[in-house]
Amino acid sequence: MPPIDRRSALLLALAGSFAATVAKVSAAEETAAGPAQPAGHDMSGVEALPHAQGDETIVLVVYPGFTLLDIAGPHYMLGNLLGATVHIAAETLDPVKPDMGPAIVPSTTFADCPTGVTLVVVPGGTNGTIAAMQDQALLGFLTDRARHARWMTSVCTGALVLGAAGLLQGYRATSHWVVRDLLARFGATPSDQRVVFDRNRITGGGVTAGLDFGLAIVDALRGREYAEAVALLGEYEPAPPFHAGTPQSAPPNTTAMLRGMLAGFVGKAGALAPEGRH
Amino acid sequence: MPPIDRRSALLLALAGSFAATVAKVSAAEETAAGPAQPAGHDMSGVEALPHAQGDETIVLVVYPGFTLLDIAGPHYMLGNLLGATVHIAAETLDPVKPDMGPAIVPSTTFADCPTGVTLVVVPGGTNGTIAAMQDQALLGFLTDRARHARWMTSVCTGALVLGAAGLLQGYRATSHWVVRDLLARFGATPSDQRVVFDRNRITGGGVTAGLDFGLAIVDALRGREYAEAVALLGEYEPAPPFHAGTPQSAPPNTTAMLRGMLAGFVGKAGALAPEGRH
Repeated sequence: MPPIDRRSALLLALAGSFAATVAKVSAAEETAAGPAQPAGHDMSGVEALPHAQGDETIVLVVYPGFTLLDIAGPHYMLGNLLGATVHIAAETLDPVKPDMGPAIVPSTTFADCPTGVTLVVVPGGTNGTIAAMQDQALLGFLTDRARHARWMTSVCTGALVLGAAGLLQGYRATSHWVVRDLLARFGATPSDQRVVFDRNRITGGGVTAGLDFGLAIVDALRGREYAEAVALLGEYEPAPPFHAGTPQSAPPNTTAMLRGMLAGFVGKAGALAPEGRH
Repeated sequence: MPPIDRRSALLLALAGSFAATVAKVSAAEETAAGPAQPAGHDMSGVEALPHAQGDETIVLVVYPGFTLLDIAGPHYMLGNLLGATVHIAAETLDPVKPDMGPAIVPSTTFADCPTGVTLVVVPGGTNGTIAAMQDQALLGFLTDRARHARWMTSVCTGALVLGAAGLLQGYRATSHWVVRDLLARFGATPSDQRVVFDRNRITGGGVTAGLDFGLAIVDALRGREYAEAVALLGEYEPAPPFHAGTPQSAPPNTTAMLRGMLAGFVGKAGALAPEGRH
């Protein structure tokens, strides 16, 4: 094998992830679904290079009624961090049913999940999120891990769960557009940016913002070169067939109707804010 | 309840999907993961309106080593089709492990999946996709359902599986950039569009193209108003932190390295083309 430079080694290593050899999976995940796939190409000589390797511990939280894409988007980006360990954490190891789509199998429980973690990601939902905002096991897990985590983060209405755990007090944050203003009632300063970094909090906007959120975190953890390679691997050059993804770009009637129809959800979430309770 | 016009009814109905009441789930899916979440708001008087309802049968295929986001992106968009039935089909009902991330629980088997379907979506991967291209149970399922399906479709390297099933012969199609040219060896005309509609085939580019693909299909099935509401629900107004998602926008070295590192995968896939076998 000819000598390779730093950049080539990094990309060599990253390319291996496309064949699913990158993120270590926890023992429970292995047990539930069989061994990982074999590597697609020869990784010898690459994994020992320290600059292409990290040792982040990433925890994606799931709860009944979470939105699958809120997890799957970030997971694609973060799962490509060579050397990182990615956990899917839930209260038990039973399959967890999202609001739509297939149940997924957690890899660890809140009790067994490591304590000193790099990143915890909380997804959104609607009814499931209202329940999560009152779930003491989940809230306790979040407040505990927040003591040591480099970043506590959320996608979509997952910010409401961080808020309910008291973890957005004094932070600038975003969420799904329909509940964004509500974050103020949890002590946060709402932002209309798609991804908001504020000290040790990172929050993303609604659902599909999880892709931008994940890629921005890869950039923050490993630098632009690495993140560019992940973007190219995932062909992340979006081309929506039309633009209606924000209250500003959607037809006003569409925005008004969705806002009206989600008023019940927004009301329930607001009632769980400290301001709502006092 | 005051009278509502056609548009309002459609959006009322759609808003319910945010609370996870839209897509019917199959009996097997219910059994594996418990009952669906309750509705977040009163849907009475809306579901009976025919114009907000469809009756599509959508099948998302999974196989060991598939890429989770190839399914999760389209699922978010298509799962918001009120009245549609969405199946996650695999050879058995055992959890299926993607190339990265949590195992998912199928809702039906190839044997039990309905025959007359609207849409079949085949996801990509790398090693798992090479295996899928030779999996007679999967290929037989695809060729059988293709006889009656309105559309046979793929995301990312899933196009290689359609190709291996002989289903791209004479069609214009796309795939992940690293194997796009290879589609010619399966009788297709490669396109560099992110989403390609050609008669009863729809193909999407790499991984994240599944979101554009899914939204374009919602548009085709239900029209622009409905699709705009889905885009707003999912806040689909992407804002990548930088642009490196195509061989044209990525640094040339990054593209060259990934291309080199994936050459083994591309070679294996090419060897399975009819042209490669003869």
